[in-house]
Amino acid sequence: MGRMKIQNSPTIRRMPSYLHKLFNMRLEGKTHVSTTELAKYMNIELIVVRKDIALTGIAGLRRVGYNINDLIDYIKSYLGWTKTFSACLIGAGALGTAILGYEDFVNYGLNIGSVFDCSDKKIGTSIHGREVYDIETIGQRFKHYHPDMAIICVSNTAAQAVTDKIIQLGIHYIWNFANVCLQVPPKVIVQREVLAGGLATLTVKMKHMDEHVEDKPIETKK
Amino acid sequence: MGRMKIQNSPTIRRMPSYLHKLFNMRLEGKTHVSTTELAKYMNIELIVVRKDIALTGIAGLRRVGYNINDLIDYIKSYLGWTKTFSACLIGAGALGTAILGYEDFVNYGLNIGSVFDCSDKKIGTSIHGREVYDIETIGQRFKHYHPDMAIICVSNTAAQAVTDKIIQLGIHYIWNFANVCLQVPPKVIVQREVLAGGLATLTVKMKHMDEHVEDKPIETKK
Repeated sequence: MGRMKIQNSPTIRRMPSYLHKLFNMRLEGKTHVSTTELAKYMNIELIVVRKDIALTGIAGLRRVGYNINDLIDYIKSYLGWTKTFSACLIGAGALGTAILGYEDFVNYGLNIGSVFDCSDKKIGTSIHGREVYDIETIGQRFKHYHPDMAIICVSNTAAQAVTDKIIQLGIHYIWNFANVCLQVPPKVIVQREVLAGGLATLTVKMKHMDEHVEDKPIETKK
Repeated sequence: MGRMKIQNSPTIRRMPSYLHKLFNMRLEGKTHVSTTELAKYMNIELIVVRKDIALTGIAGLRRVGYNINDLIDYIKSYLGWTKTFSACLIGAGALGTAILGYEDFVNYGLNIGSVFDCSDKKIGTSIHGREVYDIETIGQRFKHYHPDMAIICVSNTAAQAVTDKIIQLGIHYIWNFANVCLQVPPKVIVQREVLAGGLATLTVKMKHMDEHVEDKPIETKK
C-alpha cells in the first residue's frame, strides 16, 4: 500500500484557524457566523472560505449564516477531532516546551500525556505541569500508557534513532519537528513540519511584492 | 490593492526540504541528483517532485539528473533567497528560543539580527549568541538597524499591539507565530504559522487510515 494522497492540504491547514475563531465567537455569546466574517478574519478571499466550509459537508442557511456549534462539529468531524488523541512528546528542549505550552491543543482533543528526554538536566523536571521522563524508560511506560501518536522534537541527528525505537514500540503516527525526512515502514504515517516552509511562503510573497510595486520610484542607473 | 494570491503553496513549502537535502548531498561530495532520489527522500510521488522542480525553471538532463549547484541556485531564486533577509525576533520565550536555534536559516539567507522581549528576566540575557533587548527600545534601535521583517513570537494577547508598533516603525513583512489573525494595513504582508495546521493534516491521514485499513479484522456487533 502506498502513501495516501490527501487532497487540499492548505484547506486542512486552515481548518484549525476557523475553529479558533469559532471558539472565540462562541465565548463572546454569538450563535451564528457568516463566511464573510470568516473571510475577513482570515484575510483570505470569500470563495476560498466557502469552498473550505463546503468540504466539511455542512448545509448553510444563507440568511443567518452557519450555526457556530454546528460548524464546529462539522469541522471537527472533517478533521477527525471528534475523539481525543493521546500523544507522547520526545525532546523537551525549547521547541518541545513551546508545543507543551500551546493551549489550543486541549480544545482540539490532543492530550500530550507523557514527555521524554535523554538529558539529566531535563529528566525529573516539570514543563507546563508535565514531568519529563527518561527516554530509556519509554518501553516500560508504554506498557501502561500507549499513546496514539508521538511528537518528535529531538535534534536532527537523534530523530531517526528515536523514530526506530518508537515504531518498534507500536507507534504508527508521528508528528515530526526535526528537520530530517524520517525513513519509516509503509504503515507508519509521518507529518513533517518544516519551519522554513513558512519562511519560503513569506519570501515568495516579498519577491512578488518587490516585482509588482507600482508606487515605488524606479531607480535610474548612474 | 488586494492580497496577492500565491499559487502552489504546498510546492513552496516543500522547497526548503529539497534545499536541505541538496545541501547535505553537496557536503557528501555529490554533484548530481535525480528526481527519483528526491522523491524517495521526501517520501512523495515522483510526479510531484518533477512538477515542483519544473516550476523553478531549471532545464534538466535526463541521463545524469540535475547539477546540484544549479538546482540549489534555481530553488533559491524561485524563493527569493538569492539575497539575505534581516529580521528581528520579538518574544524570547520557548518558541522564540527554538527559532533562534534553527541552524538552517543561515543557509537560507535569514539573519535574525535582534531579539526583543518585555520581561525583565529575559532582557540582557543571551540566547544562541544574541542579546535580548528591551522592547521599549525597539524604535531607537531600528534607527540604526532596520530589519526587512519581524518574527512575532509573543503571546496571543500581546501580538496585535506589538504588530501595530512595528508597522508604525516601517516593518512591511511579518512572520507571525502567535495564534491570532493579525489585522494589518493592505501593504503589510503577514505569513501566519498555525501549529495546529500540521496536527490537522496528520489526523485527517489517521482518519483515512482507520477508514481504509484492509487487514483490520471487522468487529462484529454483539
